[in-house]
Amino acid sequence: MSSTAGQVIRCKAAVAWEAEKPLVIEEVEVAPPQVDEVRIRILYTALCHTDVFFWEAKGQNPLFPRIFGHEAGGIVESVGEGVKDLKPGDHVLPVFTGECKECAHCKSEESNLCELLRINTDRGVMLSDGKSRFSINGKPIYHFLGTSSFSEYTVVHVGCVVKINPLAPLDKVCILSCGISTGLGATLNVAKPKKGSTVAVFGLGAVGLAAAEGARISGASRIIGIDLHPDRIEEAKKFGVTEFVNPKDHKKPIQEVIAEMTDGGVDRSVECTGNVEAMISAFECVHDGWGLAVIVGVPRKDAVFKTNPVNFLNGRTLKGTFFGNYKPRSDLPSVVEKYMNKELEVEKFITHHVSFADINKAFEYMLNGQGLRCIIRLDE
Amino acid sequence: MSSTAGQVIRCKAAVAWEAEKPLVIEEVEVAPPQVDEVRIRILYTALCHTDVFFWEAKGQNPLFPRIFGHEAGGIVESVGEGVKDLKPGDHVLPVFTGECKECAHCKSEESNLCELLRINTDRGVMLSDGKSRFSINGKPIYHFLGTSSFSEYTVVHVGCVVKINPLAPLDKVCILSCGISTGLGATLNVAKPKKGSTVAVFGLGAVGLAAAEGARISGASRIIGIDLHPDRIEEAKKFGVTEFVNPKDHKKPIQEVIAEMTDGGVDRSVECTGNVEAMISAFECVHDGWGLAVIVGVPRKDAVFKTNPVNFLNGRTLKGTFFGNYKPRSDLPSVVEKYMNKELEVEKFITHHVSFADINKAFEYMLNGQGLRCIIRLDE
Repeated sequence: MSSTAGQVIRCKAAVAWEAEKPLVIEEVEVAPPQVDEVRIRILYTALCHTDVFFWEAKGQNPLFPRIFGHEAGGIVESVGEGVKDLKPGDHVLPVFTGECKECAHCKSEESNLCELLRINTDRGVMLSDGKSRFSINGKPIYHFLGTSSFSEYTVVHVGCVVKINPLAPLDKVCILSCGISTGLGATLNVAKPKKGSTVAVFGLGAVGLAAAEGARISGASRIIGIDLHPDRIEEAKKFGVTEFVNPKDHKKPIQEVIAEMTDGGVDRSVECTGNVEAMISAFECVHDGWGLAVIVGVPRKDAVFKTNPVNFLNGRTLKGTFFGNYKPRSDLPSVVEKYMNKELEVEKFITHHVSFADINKAFEYMLNGQGLRCIIRLDE
Repeated sequence: MSSTAGQVIRCKAAVAWEAEKPLVIEEVEVAPPQVDEVRIRILYTALCHTDVFFWEAKGQNPLFPRIFGHEAGGIVESVGEGVKDLKPGDHVLPVFTGECKECAHCKSEESNLCELLRINTDRGVMLSDGKSRFSINGKPIYHFLGTSSFSEYTVVHVGCVVKINPLAPLDKVCILSCGISTGLGATLNVAKPKKGSTVAVFGLGAVGLAAAEGARISGASRIIGIDLHPDRIEEAKKFGVTEFVNPKDHKKPIQEVIAEMTDGGVDRSVECTGNVEAMISAFECVHDGWGLAVIVGVPRKDAVFKTNPVNFLNGRTLKGTFFGNYKPRSDLPSVVEKYMNKELEVEKFITHHVSFADINKAFEYMLNGQGLRCIIRLDE
């Protein structure tokens, strides 16, 4: 047991006091983990669009003050009562969605939408007692996605903590806990392109490029990237994208452009923008008879997907996926191993590094569309 | 070789002279089969909704005079040049869609939408020379679906002729060449429910009941039939339907009713009505995380499928299928074998028999919604 076990830890955290205002590094109190909880020393965290989306708080219920952050890697400091699979010193990735291993979803081979620990963006407290483990002078600070990794220490439900190979460099594999696995799994676990097949990827941000990386690993012969930003072409080539299509360059619907490029349509498509028009294009651009489209991006609440049902009857399939169909605790260790055995190239997603004190720079990079992932170092 | 090979055959056929008018049994001339064609003596045929739909000619280009009919069984009388896999005397099912075995679809394991011989409801002539093989006093009579089985002899492209076990009774297995295989295959080949799972079937006509039969064969624990006609309940029980839901009995959307009955949704659903609102219900009534909906029914041309894309992102899949994903020549013989080994019960679909002279009675039964399949005997 560490000397801090069972004690309140005082440490630094980046607190969002209100929407769209720069985070402030504060000294916070982190309470000990309760039943089925784990306290983790965070060493590295990255910034993901979802953090920024809820920090901007446009359209959702604003919940402040809050500690954001959900792509991270760290080491278990102590565990609460009932935690058997983890011990202090274990290398772990906290994940924004969990796996209780008891519910119908966890017991199904097909689902990763755990009934108990499914992503919940509104909840700012721990599941067991409805309270926060973070405070400043006794006043609670809200959690985010059950992970709140913008803190030197955080408390996470055991079902959201993934034990990984201790030899894996946490400053690299920390980004596997959200966007990269989401895109990669959408291709590897859901689209499952055969060797030599054609794949279209809509949206060339980190998730889309991870989907392309999945197509590259699968041996796709053509990977067509679709994006409105032509400056993403060069970056995309590193992820196996062989052709680039900018919808702005074409008058006809982009599904028709792709069908003409591919003799009737691609074998697989993966949609990573969340724009419902792109979803429709991604579905309609797959080949009749065998084409499969996978949607990944999260749409606006009032979005409506529309298509002529004959597009389905002609042998097309549409699937959605969440977190790349990975069950976090069961499956993420194998994604880390894909990196360890050099099958998956993680480094090329990491375009920036900042110290914890400079965390707001990571927000600037993302808001300016610069780079893919910025690693924030808490280990200094 | 039969004595009629190479000769024009004069025989009886039921000719539709114009839309919605009773068919007339006429003496027609049937030309010999040309390259890649087969002339078949039809012994039994059934009537399917698609025949009636095009006979009514509401909304399609009317093509008359025409010989309808596409669910049938018969014996090869003679074959044209280049036909190697069939010979006179073979027992066969002519099919409304074909399998050339050469195109990308035929070579794909996933598709049955043969590029060359895919269903074509507009064409009333043979593919090779654009001419009809039927005539009366030299004036051509149009073909229908390449099969035109309402004739004692018909000419069919070899790619649309399925050789089957000669021991199979043609007066039973003739109905496997369209609707029954369509529904059965939608469940067995596409929905693939696991043993013990829950299945919803929308529309309890012959296709829907065949889908239910597929669920029964698969060992589904609950088969929920949805239909607007309460008089179909008793019939449906024979096909394994365990519960019946009539949308007219409920104020809330039927997908919500089904979700409440099944703790969140069924594992699989199969839509066999062609009504786009039923398609939406069939999709939205499957369980999140793993639910799969299969649409089979052919919608109106201007139908639009609409849903919130979050329904996909929550782990639901929507697939369409045509002819139950069976490749006719490769796969139908095995469906016949399922009947022969008593796995599939065909007899319960056959509710009426009429002589060829009484073929218009079969139309009456269907128009009145009486029974499922009426066998028309041409062997007398």
